[in-house]
Amino acid sequence: MEGEGSEYKYDDRDVILYNLGIGAKKDELPLVYENDDNFQVLPTFGVIPTYSATAPYSLSDIVPNFSMKMLLHGEQYLEILQYPIPTKATLISKTNLIEVVDKGNAAIVRRGNTTVDAATGKPIFYNESASFIRGSGGFGGPRQPSDRGAATAPNNPPKRSPDFVREEKTSEDQAALYRLMGDRNPLHIDPVFSAVGGFKIPILHGLAFFGISGKHVFQKYGPYKNIKVRFAGTVLPGETLVTEMWKEGGKVIYQVRMKDTGKLCITNAAAELMGGKANL
Amino acid sequence: MEGEGSEYKYDDRDVILYNLGIGAKKDELPLVYENDDNFQVLPTFGVIPTYSATAPYSLSDIVPNFSMKMLLHGEQYLEILQYPIPTKATLISKTNLIEVVDKGNAAIVRRGNTTVDAATGKPIFYNESASFIRGSGGFGGPRQPSDRGAATAPNNPPKRSPDFVREEKTSEDQAALYRLMGDRNPLHIDPVFSAVGGFKIPILHGLAFFGISGKHVFQKYGPYKNIKVRFAGTVLPGETLVTEMWKEGGKVIYQVRMKDTGKLCITNAAAELMGGKANL
Repeated sequence: MEGEGSEYKYDDRDVILYNLGIGAKKDELPLVYENDDNFQVLPTFGVIPTYSATAPYSLSDIVPNFSMKMLLHGEQYLEILQYPIPTKATLISKTNLIEVVDKGNAAIVRRGNTTVDAATGKPIFYNESASFIRGSGGFGGPRQPSDRGAATAPNNPPKRSPDFVREEKTSEDQAALYRLMGDRNPLHIDPVFSAVGGFKIPILHGLAFFGISGKHVFQKYGPYKNIKVRFAGTVLPGETLVTEMWKEGGKVIYQVRMKDTGKLCITNAAAELMGGKANL
Repeated sequence: MEGEGSEYKYDDRDVILYNLGIGAKKDELPLVYENDDNFQVLPTFGVIPTYSATAPYSLSDIVPNFSMKMLLHGEQYLEILQYPIPTKATLISKTNLIEVVDKGNAAIVRRGNTTVDAATGKPIFYNESASFIRGSGGFGGPRQPSDRGAATAPNNPPKRSPDFVREEKTSEDQAALYRLMGDRNPLHIDPVFSAVGGFKIPILHGLAFFGISGKHVFQKYGPYKNIKVRFAGTVLPGETLVTEMWKEGGKVIYQVRMKDTGKLCITNAAAELMGGKANL
């Protein structure tokens, strides 16, 4: 099952907005100034075209008792297939259903998304995302997810202390800004809506703190071929994130902790390095 | 002399980006959330279409010894001709030259800009801006500017203490964000460029702190028909602005001070009220 292609057109304005949305600062000129010699697109920008991609299925048709309120973004995997990423392009993305796993009390739906450059037809990004849907299991489906290589690798951190730690305070308005990239879910802006979900205030997008952590890995270790995270907790705009990184050969294993509570919001994460240095 | 019409197309994404660019906060839902019942466009958004409007003249053709580095944005006047302002539209703006005043050691160039809604042909905004160009006077032109009513009113504040004062800290990244609305002058982002101009760091756009002050007037006194400011000083991103307002009948006279230095950055400013309340 594969969806129709969805177009996403962007230019340097979107690139800078994305970078500011994941906390780039005014002094980081390669991220915020289109005339900087090293102006560039961060690898995690690769998830943005998926916001405008439509799935060739309705979740309510593939799992029982589906409710949007029971859906959690469980994992995200992204491959960068062209590097550097162009600072303006028209992209076409297609979504396909990979598998539906039956965890008894929940379903896990894994979908893939292939993005090509419309001008050349060549693939530029590949995404996989896993949604965890509480109350939608018990339909007699397969109990175990398939092994999908880097997309499902366990990425357990080594026992030693992290090799590098980067701290970043998110802005109170981080979600209000990030949502302009395409995820307009009211959970991230409307206090009435987020209160129904049990949150004190609207929460930050998972893909926003994915982007923040991916920026930390990039700025320290350079470009990567792929990146994978598991979402383990919610983040409120204004909280301080601490990315703990371990370099294991050509791979950076990492996790992200909230400074105030010590709780992890991203676990089992890793990026496989391209081998170059960040040109920043 | 009137220029060709320049198109400016915007939607709720641009409206929210503008509002964040002039310091709207995540809790100000009418300014940052498109599904809020009172989602709206602030009056000062009316200057944005002028960024894409081209002048029907080159400054170097109308004043002697012109240098971009000698140009200061002196005054801005804006009329709002349709209210509420649509949250999405395609606009057409035309620029015309109003006058060139010869101050001896400087020239003052005043231009007008009429913006119509492309769908209806009806005017929606009218702008006038005065540029002060050092070293470009002495060409034998008129010594005095014409009296252009509200666009050139002196707006001297009364002797009493302000009737209302509003303080707002700008963000360190305010200029990096605001420039995405269309004024990409490197003075506001590139430290090398701004250092040549004698500034410690890149400065905030005049029209950004015009917008911040116009938001303060709007949130306290409601919608206005027109607004006029004189730029009296530069603001660095991160500085705290203090808007001092005096209500004089249907007019709010105001000025803006930098909290740390006490210096004024906007003087002789006023807005003529429509008479309604801000629906916020």
